Amino acid sequence: MNSVENDSGSVGVAQREEAVQAIIAAGQRLDARGWVPATAGNISIRLDESRIVITRSGGHKGFLTPYGVMDVDLEGRPFNAGDKPSAETLLHCQIYAADPSVGAVLHGHSVASTVLSMAGKPNELLLSDYEVLKVFEGQKTHDTTLRVPVFDNDQDIARLAREVAPLLDDMKAGYVIRGHGVYVWGADMDIALARFEGLEFLLACELERRKLTS
Amino acid sequence: MNSVENDSGSVGVAQREEAVQAIIAAGQRLDARGWVPATAGNISIRLDESRIVITRSGGHKGFLTPYGVMDVDLEGRPFNAGDKPSAETLLHCQIYAADPSVGAVLHGHSVASTVLSMAGKPNELLLSDYEVLKVFEGQKTHDTTLRVPVFDNDQDIARLAREVAPLLDDMKAGYVIRGHGVYVWGADMDIALARFEGLEFLLACELERRKLTS
Amino acid sequence: MNSVENDSGSVGVAQREEAVQAIIAAGQRLDARGWVPATAGNISIRLDESRIVITRSGGHKGFLTPYGVMDVDLEGRPFNAGDKPSAETLLHCQIYAADPSVGAVLHGHSVASTVLSMAGKPNELLLSDYEVLKVFEGQKTHDTTLRVPVFDNDQDIARLAREVAPLLDDMKAGYVIRGHGVYVWGADMDIALARFEGLEFLLACELERRKLTS
Amino acid sequence: MNSVENDSGSVGVAQREEAVQAIIAAGQRLDARGWVPATAGNISIRLDESRIVITRSGGHKGFLTPYGVMDVDLEGRPFNAGDKPSAETLLHCQIYAADPSVGAVLHGHSVASTVLSMAGKPNELLLSDYEVLKVFEGQKTHDTTLRVPVFDNDQDIARLAREVAPLLDDMKAGYVIRGHGVYVWGADMDIALARFEGLEFLLACELERRKLTS
Repeated sequence: MNSVENDSGSVGVAQREEAVQAIIAAGQRLDARGWVPATAGNISIRLDESRIVITRSGGHKGFLTPYGVMDVDLEGRPFNAGDKPSAETLLHCQIYAADPSVGAVLHGHSVASTVLSMAGKPNELLLSDYEVLKVFEGQKTHDTTLRVPVFDNDQDIARLAREVAPLLDDMKAGYVIRGHGVYVWGADMDIALARFEGLEFLLACELERRKLTS
Repeated sequence: MNSVENDSGSVGVAQREEAVQAIIAAGQRLDARGWVPATAGNISIRLDESRIVITRSGGHKGFLTPYGVMDVDLEGRPFNAGDKPSAETLLHCQIYAADPSVGAVLHGHSVASTVLSMAGKPNELLLSDYEVLKVFEGQKTHDTTLRVPVFDNDQDIARLAREVAPLLDDMKAGYVIRGHGVYVWGADMDIALARFEGLEFLLACELERRKLTS
Repeated sequence: MNSVENDSGSVGVAQREEAVQAIIAAGQRLDARGWVPATAGNISIRLDESRIVITRSGGHKGFLTPYGVMDVDLEGRPFNAGDKPSAETLLHCQIYAADPSVGAVLHGHSVASTVLSMAGKPNELLLSDYEVLKVFEGQKTHDTTLRVPVFDNDQDIARLAREVAPLLDDMKAGYVIRGHGVYVWGADMDIALARFEGLEFLLACELERRKLTS
Repeated sequence: MNSVENDSGSVGVAQREEAVQAIIAAGQRLDARGWVPATAGNISIRLDESRIVITRSGGHKGFLTPYGVMDVDLEGRPFNAGDKPSAETLLHCQIYAADPSVGAVLHGHSVASTVLSMAGKPNELLLSDYEVLKVFEGQKTHDTTLRVPVFDNDQDIARLAREVAPLLDDMKAGYVIRGHGVYVWGADMDIALARFEGLEFLLACELERRKLTS
């Protein structure tokens, strides 16, 4: 990936700083819940139609500083030539490109998403009858079933993105990568965080239900 | 619902401010335990015989500010015409109306209440022989069985309230809505929080017991 | 119980204040782990040969203030006539009376101790082969079995104390009251807290082991 | 063990202070996750080719102060004659001696490592297909199996070290002592902590998978 011209475009300093602080706070929140273990996870915010700010590869997402993020365009090319984006930046870009209303994307690794996606290797997780389903776009009732697609993990992110693409328009709650974690998004960081927390709550419920013996 | 006249009535500014701070602190407490995921839950305090202050719809209950609450009368009508109460405000009002000694009501969503109310679709949860039962109104011994009613979830809150009504006078520990969460109350916020925590502790114990294999 | 004369005896103000602060901090610690839900638990420190300071009945142990504790003698009689000790004060006094080296006693309610003491109604819990066993008095190896007695819960605390008495001299890790919680002690608060945490860790391990299916 | 000469060697005061603060912060982090219960665990950093700073025996690792650590040489002999290293210091020294690139070593006790190493007494734990495997040295894909050796616990640490020695060169994720806990290391404390958290995350996943009933 080549870097694009280093132009701050239409994004003001204060707006970018606010986005960076929101990413740092989101990382601390995900860490407090145990959803970004080790150096896992990545977090981004769309700054304008051609620029997103995203966490760099490596580093703990619970202890981010402003130096832990970088700017890329919607194809994942860094604005600063020296910056090297993480491979998974492409999955963020894909989500922003597919829906102009998306303002923030979160990726984390939880025990529940990891275990549920590996046990029996399902192609989707079905979430039915939960009140918390109403946190997702367009859901007005608990009396429904939400399908959360599960994709096989792949170190070739471009290939993984091609698997995700056909289903992306109909993912109300995000998607899961097997043995890996979830991708969730929203119009802004508050909404993305609420949906992330909602999805993890439902996956935690599902995991508990599969352990019942009586 | 029409708004009622915007009259602060007998409630002083300091008393209302204290109630708002108690609601904010209760939200942080419930969030720390994972009981208000996403934008779930709502929290209220009775200010006088005709006014309660309650969290607005939406927003994360762990990050409330004074702008996140509003005043309604005991039929759920906002004092400020521009305020729109959440649908579940009616369930709070129903509890205050049924018992003049109730000063605070809490509603949260926990993994334990969600899973236990869905598995086998019980109409009640029975809690027996736990010391913590003594936290509930009028309980002097562990050597008893408390019945916690479970109601089917319903997006029509008025209809749900009519299901709750006949049992409301005999609910020492609150009630559960299936796949949704618990309602708990008390004479003041400290008591309501203690009972909420007590009920969730007992539901957590019940859930663990149903996972034992030996 | 009558109050004894209000005499500060040999205990200095600074020593008592230090003990009160240690009790407050212990309450916050137990609360952070979820071991004193609702108004559960009680905490005490021996000030001298005839006086202990102990938490009052009721109130949340995670939010103690200096007003949440009171002084009693070794038979549980309050030094201030207006103070009313909790019934379980007698169990603290029994432990101090049995062993002059005990400086602090902790009582809490955990999910693990509650569930393990109720499932199958055991008269003791056996803890074997754990490294953490070494935190208990006189344990030099993991290669041993520690017996933790389980007593039936009883609202008649004097009668419960008589059940505890014959076994008290040989309780390295404390004891459990069925469906209720644990009592743990040590030469000072740091040691008592370490043993409490050690015992709860081992009970958490035992509970997990009883849920394994493969 | 005799003490060696008390010579600060090539280590500056500021460097040592930084290492001590990193150890204190690591202890707080492990404690927040419940991985150093009671007085369990120990933590060290290599200061130069002949000196490491390590936590003393006893004391809670979540509440360390600068007085809670001491300096030893690579054979575990204290630099200050009055210091008495913990027995497990030898296991830290063994790791530093085997690999000059190791800068920090962590030992903790978790419920997951304790339960998984005891159930069925395995000689190794196999971790397969997890994305988080990539946190370990040299791992570029999830599509692999990592073997984590499990050694029988032994109060004779020198004898335990002899069991560990033959396998030490091929331990990408550290090792487990049965019923006791994990040893994990890295080039610096951040890397060691990330690997520790990664290994515990994977063991937590393994434990959940063994509780599934459907």
